[in-house]
Amino acid sequence: MTTKQIVLASRPLGLPTVANFKYENTVLPNLQEGEILLQGLFYSVDPYMRGRMNDAKSYSPPFQLNEPIQGSVIAKVLESKSDNFKKGDTVAGFFPWQEQFIYNGKGLQKIDATIAPLSYYLGILGMTGLTAYFGLMDIGKPKAKETVVISGAAGAVGMVVGQIAKLQGCHVVGIAGSEMKIKLLKELGFDDVINYKTTIDIKNSIANLCPNGIDIYFDNVGGEISDAVINNINFHARIILCGQISLYNNTEIPMGPRLQPTLLTRSALMQGFIIGNYQSRFPEGIQHLTNWVKENKLIFKETIVHGFDQLPAAFIGLFDGENIGKMIVEA
Amino acid sequence: MTTKQIVLASRPLGLPTVANFKYENTVLPNLQEGEILLQGLFYSVDPYMRGRMNDAKSYSPPFQLNEPIQGSVIAKVLESKSDNFKKGDTVAGFFPWQEQFIYNGKGLQKIDATIAPLSYYLGILGMTGLTAYFGLMDIGKPKAKETVVISGAAGAVGMVVGQIAKLQGCHVVGIAGSEMKIKLLKELGFDDVINYKTTIDIKNSIANLCPNGIDIYFDNVGGEISDAVINNINFHARIILCGQISLYNNTEIPMGPRLQPTLLTRSALMQGFIIGNYQSRFPEGIQHLTNWVKENKLIFKETIVHGFDQLPAAFIGLFDGENIGKMIVEA
Repeated sequence: MTTKQIVLASRPLGLPTVANFKYENTVLPNLQEGEILLQGLFYSVDPYMRGRMNDAKSYSPPFQLNEPIQGSVIAKVLESKSDNFKKGDTVAGFFPWQEQFIYNGKGLQKIDATIAPLSYYLGILGMTGLTAYFGLMDIGKPKAKETVVISGAAGAVGMVVGQIAKLQGCHVVGIAGSEMKIKLLKELGFDDVINYKTTIDIKNSIANLCPNGIDIYFDNVGGEISDAVINNINFHARIILCGQISLYNNTEIPMGPRLQPTLLTRSALMQGFIIGNYQSRFPEGIQHLTNWVKENKLIFKETIVHGFDQLPAAFIGLFDGENIGKMIVEA
Repeated sequence: MTTKQIVLASRPLGLPTVANFKYENTVLPNLQEGEILLQGLFYSVDPYMRGRMNDAKSYSPPFQLNEPIQGSVIAKVLESKSDNFKKGDTVAGFFPWQEQFIYNGKGLQKIDATIAPLSYYLGILGMTGLTAYFGLMDIGKPKAKETVVISGAAGAVGMVVGQIAKLQGCHVVGIAGSEMKIKLLKELGFDDVINYKTTIDIKNSIANLCPNGIDIYFDNVGGEISDAVINNINFHARIILCGQISLYNNTEIPMGPRLQPTLLTRSALMQGFIIGNYQSRFPEGIQHLTNWVKENKLIFKETIVHGFDQLPAAFIGLFDGENIGKMIVEA
C-alpha cells in the first residue's frame, strides 16, 4: 500500500517557495502488533516550522532533507492492532505530512468531536490555545485595568491572547495587517487595533491608544513593530516572546535599537518561551480553554485550506498574513 | 555659616567633563528642632548617576541644573536637635554633594564602624552589595555547577556577584579591562577572566571558557560584550540587566543585533531591575552580606579618591574603568 508524503527538498533561503518541497509516494509496511494505521484529516501549519527548515540549533532539531515535514495533525484510525484504539477513533498528535501513516500509539491524545469541531484540537484546544494561555497568564500575569498590546493579533495565538486578556479586565490593543482583520478583532472585543500596513507613525499611534503606557506586550512578530511598542512600555512591564515571524526569513542577522537600556530603566522583563516548557500544566490550560469555549467567552477563527497538496502553499501564506486565526489544511 | 557644594552646571553631551560641574558656596540656615547638621565623610560615585544628568524620563527624576548632585554619602553628626541622633553618630543616607548639610533625620540609617569600615556602607553593606545579592539570587536563581558570566566584573557590583556565585557553587567567568583587574578577580576566586581590551574574538573566547554554555549573565556593561555573551546562552538562561555603562554616554540610539530570536529559541529571560524594587527585603540581603564579610567569604575592594573637590573627576573616571571595585571619594 502506497501513500503520498511531502518532504523538504531543499532548505529555504529567505521566504520559502513551493520548490523547497517535494511530493513523493512511499510504501507503508504491514501493521505490527500495537500499531495503528491513521488517515490525516487536518494538518496544522505554524510559523515556528520555518525555524526547523534551517540547519541551525534551536529548541527542536532541524527537519531532515528528503524526509517528510512533521507537525500537529488530527487523524482518524483506519485500522488498529492496539488495545487502546479502535477503528474510527480520532486522535491528535505530531505526525508527518503524509496522507496515511502508521504510528505506535504512544503519547497519543484521543479527541472528542462532541466538545468542539475536530480542527479546534489543532488550535484553541491544542498548542495554539495553550500557547496563548500560558504565555499571557504565566509570564504576563495580567491584572485588571492593565494595558496589553498584541502583535500578530489576528493570528491564531494573538486573537486568543486578546480575548483572554479581556476576560482578565485588561485594556487590549492589537496590531494587525488588514482592515478585515481589524474589523474581526473589534468584534472579538479588542478595544483598538492598529493597521501596521497603513499607519505611518506606529510609535505615535501606539502611544495615543495606550495613554497609560503598556504593561504587557505579547509579541508574535518582532522587528520594527516591537521597537515601536517597547518604546512605550511601563515600569515593570512584561514582554512575552512568542514568535518573531517578521524575522524568520531574514538571511542576515537583523539589527535594531538595543533594548537593554529601556528594559533596565523600566525594570522590565522579556521572556522567551515555548509551549513545551508547560507540558506538566497542559490539563490546567485545556480545562480553562474548554470552559471558555463552551461558555462562548472565547471565539475561535480558522482559515481552512482544502487539499493535502496545498500544505506548502498554506505554510508559505503564513508569512504574507493570508490567514485569519489558525491556518489549517483539511486533507 | 557657609559650605561648599558641587552643582550640575550643564547637561553632558556624551562623556561628562569637569566643565559640566561647578563649585559653589552656600549658606546653611540655623538648625531647627528635629534636624541634624552633618559632615560628609565618604561620597559614592555610581554609573547610574549619568542617567540622572540627562533631562529624560527614567526611574529617578533628572538632576536639576544649578542644584547640587545627590548620591549616597556616609556622614558624621556635628550637631543634633533630634532625639534620635547625637553628636558623633555616623549615618548613611542620600545627600547632596556638599561638605556640610542639614537633614531632618527621617529615614536615616545609623551605621556601626565596629562591624566594617565606614565606607563599606556605600559598597558591600550598602546599595552595591544589595544590588549584587538580589540581582544574582532573585533574578538569576543560581544553581550549583551552572555557568555565570559577569561583565564589568572588576566593578563594585561585579566583583561581589562573582564571589556570591562562587559561594553557590557556580563556574564563574568575568569580563574586565586590565591585567591588574584580571589578577585581582582570580585572587577573589573567579574561575576565568577575559580581558575585553586585548581579546580579539570575545565571542569565541567566551565559548571556549564556557564549554557548557552560559546559564546566567549578569550584565553591567551592555553593547558588543553583551552580544558576544548572549550568543552563548543556554536554554532557560537568565540575563540580569544591572547596568549598561558602555552605552550611557551615547548621543544616538545604539544599534545592535536583535535579541528576541535568541531569547525566544532558548526560552531565556532578560530582566531589568533597580535595587529600590527590593526595599522591603533589604534586611535579608544585609544579613547575608554581613555574615559573608565577617566570615571572610566575601572580600571587598575599593578605589578611594581623596578630596571633596575630586568628586566630578572620580565620577568621570568610572567610564574609563579607572576604579577597581567601588569608587569612593573621601572628603
